[in-house]
Amino acid sequence: MDVVPHSLAVLIDKLGRLPGIGRKTATRLALHLLRRPPEESRALAASIAGLHGSIRLCSRCLAFSEEDPCALCADPRRDHRQICVVEGVADMMAIEKSGVYRGVYHLLHGALSPMDGVGPDDLHIRELLARIRAQEIREVLIATSSTVPGEATAALLMERLAATGTRVSRLAFGIPMGMDIQYADEMTLARAIEARRPVRQEG
Amino acid sequence: MDVVPHSLAVLIDKLGRLPGIGRKTATRLALHLLRRPPEESRALAASIAGLHGSIRLCSRCLAFSEEDPCALCADPRRDHRQICVVEGVADMMAIEKSGVYRGVYHLLHGALSPMDGVGPDDLHIRELLARIRAQEIREVLIATSSTVPGEATAALLMERLAATGTRVSRLAFGIPMGMDIQYADEMTLARAIEARRPVRQEG
Repeated sequence: MDVVPHSLAVLIDKLGRLPGIGRKTATRLALHLLRRPPEESRALAASIAGLHGSIRLCSRCLAFSEEDPCALCADPRRDHRQICVVEGVADMMAIEKSGVYRGVYHLLHGALSPMDGVGPDDLHIRELLARIRAQEIREVLIATSSTVPGEATAALLMERLAATGTRVSRLAFGIPMGMDIQYADEMTLARAIEARRPVRQEG
Repeated sequence: MDVVPHSLAVLIDKLGRLPGIGRKTATRLALHLLRRPPEESRALAASIAGLHGSIRLCSRCLAFSEEDPCALCADPRRDHRQICVVEGVADMMAIEKSGVYRGVYHLLHGALSPMDGVGPDDLHIRELLARIRAQEIREVLIATSSTVPGEATAALLMERLAATGTRVSRLAFGIPMGMDIQYADEMTLARAIEARRPVRQEG
């Protein structure tokens, strides 16, 4: 006999599809929401429902933002001639937390992964090259993860950037191999940024 | 510099207040929602927002239900003269999953815990006694957790039920001490229900 009301079962099912949330956790969360005042659930629901409406991509760095350009791209205190290329916003957040980097960013929104159908044209490399052509860029810092897709993406970026003549660097290998940089601790990230090494230009 | 858009930060904050969800998990969930199609987020939001609207308490057993009485209380195949008293819906779900119990339930919606301000009047014991007075009940099976609040609640129930003259039993101690019964495995629960022991009546 199913003792779970339909609407509760639907919510448990939906929560259970979120990454890292199993059926037991989903049940616990749904019951927690049910026990709390309705206003709390409605506030959470409104926050989730409104997410896509209020957030767009910054036309410069492609970060999620409510304004265009984003607060970081609009900040005159940042060094706009230094671009840090990351796979996604979580990496950008981790680097910002280290407090060492003063330039701006460029988000690829992914990493090369032919197995998952992510090819060079699915990453926003064209936009990066356009930024480099449009304004004077002193340095491009490649900060992709030291995973297989991250390394492949870095190799692709180095190849594409070679023709631009811009100085290209990579995060120092202070980051343990095989680790997603969004999980690296702040000290490790700070040291990796400070010890970043120039890339030999082939073009 | 804060690189997280306001609406995203608000959502991360709200998700991070859910039980067992830390800031890192909340960030991962929020970014996941942002990357998925807006329809998915809106469906989840609608599910959360509608939860309280469609779900009420069954007037008999006090379980969450979309109908009153709930499907279980309305089921003629269940034994309505046997009431299993549980702290909450998660415990009821665990017992149902064991497949052994054929009676109905009564939900206390909590356990005695003076430290948290939960006293005898905060549990739905009055409603249980009213049920026992209103119809013929063959047995009350106390299935509170074998935690300190659960044991205190069981003692209180035994005291209150003594005057009714109804047969009272408790889950057998197949359940490890100190464990919340919602986390007990199905086999352990099934054996505990089968080996339930009668309580000596003092009234």
